[in-house]
Amino acid sequence: MIIRTTAEALDRADPLAAFRGRFAIDDAGLYMDGNSLGRPPLVTEARVAAALAAWRRDLIIAWREWIRVPRRIGDAIATSVLEARAGELIVGDSTSVNLYKAAAAAIAARPGRTTLVTSDDNFPTDLYVLQSLAAQHALRLQVLAADEVHGLDAATLAEGVGADSALVCLSHVAYRSGALLDMAGLTKIAHAAGALVLWDVSHSAGSVPVPLESSGADLAVGCSYKYLNGGPGAPAFVYVREALQASLRQPIWGWFGHREQFRMGADFEPAEGIESFLVGVPAILSTVGIEAGVEVIAEAGIERIRAKGQALGDLMIQLADEWLAPHGFVLASPRDAARRGAHVSLRHPNAKAFVKALIAEGVTPDFRPPDMIRFGPAPLYTRFVDVWDALDRLRRLCAERPELAAA
Amino acid sequence: MIIRTTAEALDRADPLAAFRGRFAIDDAGLYMDGNSLGRPPLVTEARVAAALAAWRRDLIIAWREWIRVPRRIGDAIATSVLEARAGELIVGDSTSVNLYKAAAAAIAARPGRTTLVTSDDNFPTDLYVLQSLAAQHALRLQVLAADEVHGLDAATLAEGVGADSALVCLSHVAYRSGALLDMAGLTKIAHAAGALVLWDVSHSAGSVPVPLESSGADLAVGCSYKYLNGGPGAPAFVYVREALQASLRQPIWGWFGHREQFRMGADFEPAEGIESFLVGVPAILSTVGIEAGVEVIAEAGIERIRAKGQALGDLMIQLADEWLAPHGFVLASPRDAARRGAHVSLRHPNAKAFVKALIAEGVTPDFRPPDMIRFGPAPLYTRFVDVWDALDRLRRLCAERPELAAA
Repeated sequence: MIIRTTAEALDRADPLAAFRGRFAIDDAGLYMDGNSLGRPPLVTEARVAAALAAWRRDLIIAWREWIRVPRRIGDAIATSVLEARAGELIVGDSTSVNLYKAAAAAIAARPGRTTLVTSDDNFPTDLYVLQSLAAQHALRLQVLAADEVHGLDAATLAEGVGADSALVCLSHVAYRSGALLDMAGLTKIAHAAGALVLWDVSHSAGSVPVPLESSGADLAVGCSYKYLNGGPGAPAFVYVREALQASLRQPIWGWFGHREQFRMGADFEPAEGIESFLVGVPAILSTVGIEAGVEVIAEAGIERIRAKGQALGDLMIQLADEWLAPHGFVLASPRDAARRGAHVSLRHPNAKAFVKALIAEGVTPDFRPPDMIRFGPAPLYTRFVDVWDALDRLRRLCAERPELAAA
Repeated sequence: MIIRTTAEALDRADPLAAFRGRFAIDDAGLYMDGNSLGRPPLVTEARVAAALAAWRRDLIIAWREWIRVPRRIGDAIATSVLEARAGELIVGDSTSVNLYKAAAAAIAARPGRTTLVTSDDNFPTDLYVLQSLAAQHALRLQVLAADEVHGLDAATLAEGVGADSALVCLSHVAYRSGALLDMAGLTKIAHAAGALVLWDVSHSAGSVPVPLESSGADLAVGCSYKYLNGGPGAPAFVYVREALQASLRQPIWGWFGHREQFRMGADFEPAEGIESFLVGVPAILSTVGIEAGVEVIAEAGIERIRAKGQALGDLMIQLADEWLAPHGFVLASPRDAARRGAHVSLRHPNAKAFVKALIAEGVTPDFRPPDMIRFGPAPLYTRFVDVWDALDRLRRLCAERPELAAA
């Protein structure tokens, strides 16, 4: 039996405990949705205010500095959050638009190959973007069956990828189950078939190490508003391995991707390097906040964040086993922390009603249809007692409202 | 001879004079770049702060309101700034990405037609986007020669467009000369050939009436950081005539363009209506400020803004004739205010050096290579005396630095 003092002891021993103080937390709520929209770092407000002040004071002249923002923050994400190098990553556009650019670039680099490969547990927008590209280029989209809990396995990919595969696009951490895929192993299988690999690291960036360099990954995209705490709809990022930058060309040619943007010449010439993946004007007020979250991650260190994420998940699973399994809750995430990202999901036929009731009581997970409750504790600001308290409320809901648990 | 008191009298008679008080203006500078980055409305800071506070307080729950922002501000732009209807316009992504979506949708709706048509005075990113689509779809991009001062004329378009034309894409107001095109007349010519028409209204939205409805325009895109004063890199908008929304399908399928986004189904089904032109998560902090600027335009009224823009331009041209023509400056914009947007450009062989010298003296126009000084007075906050003073400084520069004027 895990008593609350066990969680309290874990908090006292937590080397990241002090980082909670770097976030703006006014509420007594138990926020378990750090994987949907991370909390604001305390300094974010000042960063946005500084950008507003620069606009007001310097007007167009402020662009002399802003023009560097997509690359500056891209470099910081590459080197502090992911395993990548400066010059391999740039910030701008949404994750969906970056998926489109990256996947289209890969398709163009594999002429004659007729298939795009993904898995059925990939995030919906990834599937939709691949569907749009398949329709445009008359390609076949092959959707491999992933294990519901553990995600796509190597054997399924090895069987599904072949000489006709142009691109394999997978999520590093599955948005529902939290399954953490073997980036290096799966990339190797795709490469053996001659396909390029595009990783969506939206649910892994800032929560687990992302071995873009050592895995041999070709391309990646990710979002900045989850574990990076960049703010609502903060622009996403795109990674292109340096060795491929000269040969991969994305399809939306805009002035920010031009070699000499302000010459304003009549013909498009792509920038050298990662800047060729930019398109239009970066949304400055939504972008400057990203840097604040990246700085906190850099200080905390991704390895320590990973360790705490595993421990938070382990505690959650232990409590769910003890308190919730008897009420019909089923673990939907890998039990082995090594195979899991930072979120943990439970299934229950009445998941939707439970989520509604939890939110009314100040606990915020999210509901994923048809029957999943997803808890996204964020290692930088979620305490072990928060996990204990959140699951305690769910346990009490089961007791107080037997009609829910009985379903 | 126009003396300063003439400009002062124009300001006293200006029905929009009070609107200057709605903007954050701390500096004594003469800002003539309202067509590149508009000044912040006073309330913008509070709007952004409110979004930051909602993030901090409500976290993921704040999306219940934010999800409506792209359409809410889109409706406001449609009905208060442009001549369009609610439901025909949505805010999101950059102008370049919207150009790509809109042009690609038009290409798909005209199968078998092999040519895209534009003019050589269109904005560079428009040309680049069309080049990328021409390359992808093996189409020919036909770039018509526009008159350097007055822009594309009807005869040139009539000759250039034909049964092979899928799309005509033009800027309503030319970014260099300020030429205002006849949207209705040119649209009619393109339609007679069976082509669709996409208007870039980046330099006209908020400065002149934009007759999307009555002209028969099919599609439009525009930016919100110029005369809409939405802030650096604030997301752009895309307009699709209601009657065409069911048949025009844009190529980047993302979850925000899905009919039932949060069902998170495996297959893309486009939203009905303008929402199908959304793609990914909207950049909230960069978007909420747009509403502030739109509200000011709604109060001032686009017809009054247009009238003042013409008067500011007329004054500028009169002063340039009197003071600057003797020093080698040549008017690069239409002399007839009816054929001109709100900015006025002058050519001079030493334009670049003059712009540098002007900025050092607190006058901010912009330089457009190779030889153009572009003045963008903004009717909502630029005074007639500002125009007088700005050109007076340029006149004095000519006197004090004869080596510049002599070039």
